[in-house]
Amino acid sequence: MTIDLRADPIVLTAALVDIPSVSKDEAAIVDTVTRALREQTTGFEVLRCGNSVLARTDRGRDSRVILAGHLDTVPIADNVPGRFETVDGQQTLYGCGSVDMKSGDAVFLHLAATVAEPVCDLTLIMYDCEEIAAEFNGLGRIERELPEWLDGDLAILGEPSGAWIEAGCQGTLRVRLTVRGTRAHTARAWMGDNAIHALGPILQRLREYRPREVDIDGCVYREGLSAVGIDGGVAGNVVPDEASVLVNFRFAPDRSLEQATEHVRQVFSGLDLDFERTDGSPGALPGLTAPAAKNLVEQVHSHGGGGIRAKYGWTDVSRFAARGIPAVNFGPGDPNLAHTVDEHVPTAQITTVADILRGYLTRA
Amino acid sequence: MTIDLRADPIVLTAALVDIPSVSKDEAAIVDTVTRALREQTTGFEVLRCGNSVLARTDRGRDSRVILAGHLDTVPIADNVPGRFETVDGQQTLYGCGSVDMKSGDAVFLHLAATVAEPVCDLTLIMYDCEEIAAEFNGLGRIERELPEWLDGDLAILGEPSGAWIEAGCQGTLRVRLTVRGTRAHTARAWMGDNAIHALGPILQRLREYRPREVDIDGCVYREGLSAVGIDGGVAGNVVPDEASVLVNFRFAPDRSLEQATEHVRQVFSGLDLDFERTDGSPGALPGLTAPAAKNLVEQVHSHGGGGIRAKYGWTDVSRFAARGIPAVNFGPGDPNLAHTVDEHVPTAQITTVADILRGYLTRA
Repeated sequence: MTIDLRADPIVLTAALVDIPSVSKDEAAIVDTVTRALREQTTGFEVLRCGNSVLARTDRGRDSRVILAGHLDTVPIADNVPGRFETVDGQQTLYGCGSVDMKSGDAVFLHLAATVAEPVCDLTLIMYDCEEIAAEFNGLGRIERELPEWLDGDLAILGEPSGAWIEAGCQGTLRVRLTVRGTRAHTARAWMGDNAIHALGPILQRLREYRPREVDIDGCVYREGLSAVGIDGGVAGNVVPDEASVLVNFRFAPDRSLEQATEHVRQVFSGLDLDFERTDGSPGALPGLTAPAAKNLVEQVHSHGGGGIRAKYGWTDVSRFAARGIPAVNFGPGDPNLAHTVDEHVPTAQITTVADILRGYLTRA
Repeated sequence: MTIDLRADPIVLTAALVDIPSVSKDEAAIVDTVTRALREQTTGFEVLRCGNSVLARTDRGRDSRVILAGHLDTVPIADNVPGRFETVDGQQTLYGCGSVDMKSGDAVFLHLAATVAEPVCDLTLIMYDCEEIAAEFNGLGRIERELPEWLDGDLAILGEPSGAWIEAGCQGTLRVRLTVRGTRAHTARAWMGDNAIHALGPILQRLREYRPREVDIDGCVYREGLSAVGIDGGVAGNVVPDEASVLVNFRFAPDRSLEQATEHVRQVFSGLDLDFERTDGSPGALPGLTAPAAKNLVEQVHSHGGGGIRAKYGWTDVSRFAARGIPAVNFGPGDPNLAHTVDEHVPTAQITTVADILRGYLTRA
């Protein structure tokens, strides 16, 4: 298979969609992309690493921008090869990966091949296994094995963001709140102490909780505290002696993971329960005041397309933020269509993202 | 194997304990009991029916008393054969079934063989598979196949009751209360409606509920409304759209099953939930004002041992109550020791039960 990196990124997106690349089955697309980078770009060192491919320039520029995207998709649902349709007068590309995230990949590959003299050095990272369990994530493997490839002044992830800059990301943590009681036969319920009944005040606190909204660098983050699981019960005739609620806190990046955990502990203070944090990942500050990021923001504003907003979900941008590198999501496509059978992208968004990034990489 | 029905019921209990009879493995004990009834009693028609044995007199008396007990036990836990020990100066028999309920069986079998001229006709029912799922219950099978054997004026079940008369039984029903919401990603929790949070008011009602106590025929019944299960959750990052609580109501026998169900519905009235009754069994009125029962009550009072109280749990007595026959539990042993490895009965209680019943069956 061959792809033409110099073709319109819309055409290149369609070509990438037509190469199936479900997580763990990505050899064909990585072979194709690696060969294209070697044959159709100049000034790049190209490194194949497992099912990821890395490429970077070393032009001695003052700053370095990382363009990163994953090449894998969720399982195909009778939506490969892709097809073009006109929807409400707009050219639209349907197909698995058209949104998440071969359109973003196509823009990055096209720019690597066509921007002859970028104002900064470039690092391109096309990685594998983003759509499955975190342990397989190719970017995580690169972070462990080739950390120097992640150095830079700004990281742009081409995840679908509707051609808006989505900056930073919220943190997430989960706690299990367990209450204990005394087991008894329900025929003599007064001899027991019902642990499920004792969950009432926990749920009451969750109902009363008013999540915070916070503005950081012009991005509004909106927190949320949600029960995501509840469990209790021994048998149909037993007063249960244990019950628990699993709670997920999504928090703005001005709180550290520890501060966020302490906040959740305070929400339930005074209740008799066991508090256990089961997992947690810090958020990422938008970092839009850093010079490399500020230039991108200006480019977006002067282009007139898209805009800038906070990212609510947790994404791979926080891997860069944890290294002190500002990172944003910026790619074509509506993230709500990712992973759907009906996945599709208005091709004008591919052009918008490509135009803004071309302007950013070639600005005076 | 041979047993001597004329021996002291304490000795007979020990002999029955030493014949293993775990549910569904009761052929040996039923063979032994059937042969003993045929060879050692007079005036009884004896009928083997599966692993149950039935025996009845037809002396033309004015009333008929049913003595019923199951011969099966829960699985043996290194506690067969039984052994006698002295505990706090009291002779005590240890062993699987010593409480539940071979001591009660032994008393019934002994009386059948030794009360030559009872004042009433007698029906003896020794049945199988009481300790496992209701569908296997031998008394249920007899009710379906030989219902005329369950006719009588009073049924005495020899279930352990500490040598007290435990009258009637409470009813039980379970309802599943399900609340619905709207699913969303927890990173955008405000787009959803959390079904687990909506369980809060249900648990609040359970916490505030004050169960009723009611006196019927001098027996105090004590109701109870208990959550016995709680369930909800889709994934660690999803606002769940459904959650449910399973609630068990134990109700006094002055409410019918339908009245009790309506009461529970009222407890949760005004809340937005689906209400589904998953199972239910009516209670049994104590019926102690019926003549045959009244005589037994008088016998207990004149003996001075034991006493009379309400039965809280659901037992096979309600099968008789449903047929309009007063029914009581009356047997040696602490019901809290049933099904324990440490199961044991003070032998004096065996004598007390035998003495009271002998007085009842031979009264002037």
